[in-house]
Amino acid sequence: MTRQPGPPDEATLRAWLAIAVEEARTGMAEGGVPIGAALISADGEVLGRGHNRRVQDGDPSAHGETDAFRNAGRQRTYRGTTMVTTLSPCWYCTGLIRQFGISRVVVGESTTFTGGHGDLEALGVEVIVLEDAACIAMMREFIADHPDIWNEDIGE
Amino acid sequence: MTRQPGPPDEATLRAWLAIAVEEARTGMAEGGVPIGAALISADGEVLGRGHNRRVQDGDPSAHGETDAFRNAGRQRTYRGTTMVTTLSPCWYCTGLIRQFGISRVVVGESTTFTGGHGDLEALGVEVIVLEDAACIAMMREFIADHPDIWNEDIGE
Repeated sequence: MTRQPGPPDEATLRAWLAIAVEEARTGMAEGGVPIGAALISADGEVLGRGHNRRVQDGDPSAHGETDAFRNAGRQRTYRGTTMVTTLSPCWYCTGLIRQFGISRVVVGESTTFTGGHGDLEALGVEVIVLEDAACIAMMREFIADHPDIWNEDIGE
Repeated sequence: MTRQPGPPDEATLRAWLAIAVEEARTGMAEGGVPIGAALISADGEVLGRGHNRRVQDGDPSAHGETDAFRNAGRQRTYRGTTMVTTLSPCWYCTGLIRQFGISRVVVGESTTFTGGHGDLEALGVEVIVLEDAACIAMMREFIADHPDIWNEDIGE
């Protein structure tokens, strides 16, 4: 399969976001921070998917994006890959995307929190922000119920 | 014990770097990328130490700094903490330091690779670069022997 030129269509974006949302909901059901992500290959294959594991594993390094990246295992290159995430990537996850040359970021929402996706765009990464209502509602509810865990997760 | 004001003295910096170097050498002995790090509390306690585990664990998310951060477990705040690392932090690890508000970075060397420590300094993080000859020699040898693994580790 050859790489589709140009941005993905709406149905593809929604299908990718659905994977990230499913991960976030799994995390929430585990009692954790509901942020999920997936790393998608240039050909549209899911290389890895994951969710925040701060609470479940006592692991502050496992954000949604880093967990998906980790689960994808070693890759020779990240050229053409997409990171889809339910929430605007924090600076830690922004740095991951920058360092490894991930080509595209699809963001579920940046209403409840805005990290570094603007900087990524300025650096040439393709950024698509969906402002998905379900993603916004999920984070709003979590932040209202667990402000302490949320502040810990973003180092505040 | 109260936090010492101002930068740590030379003996303290060298003692911290020695921990990071010991981690890097452990990683090298395991066949891995020889980069080590430790997270030090405001009181000088070692909260966590670790090393790059790309090769050993097949985990591309485990850089020296992220492994040390992970091993420190959940912390209420990173204010006053120091990340000591054998090598200038890549953008991924730079993002970690920025997001979690780690106050100081002690860098073994930035001769073989320069990441984002300059940006961190501009953001108000205290940055001390030691340009340690043993750290430089260790990375030079690794890069010469394993250019493929090194390029993979920094996403090139």
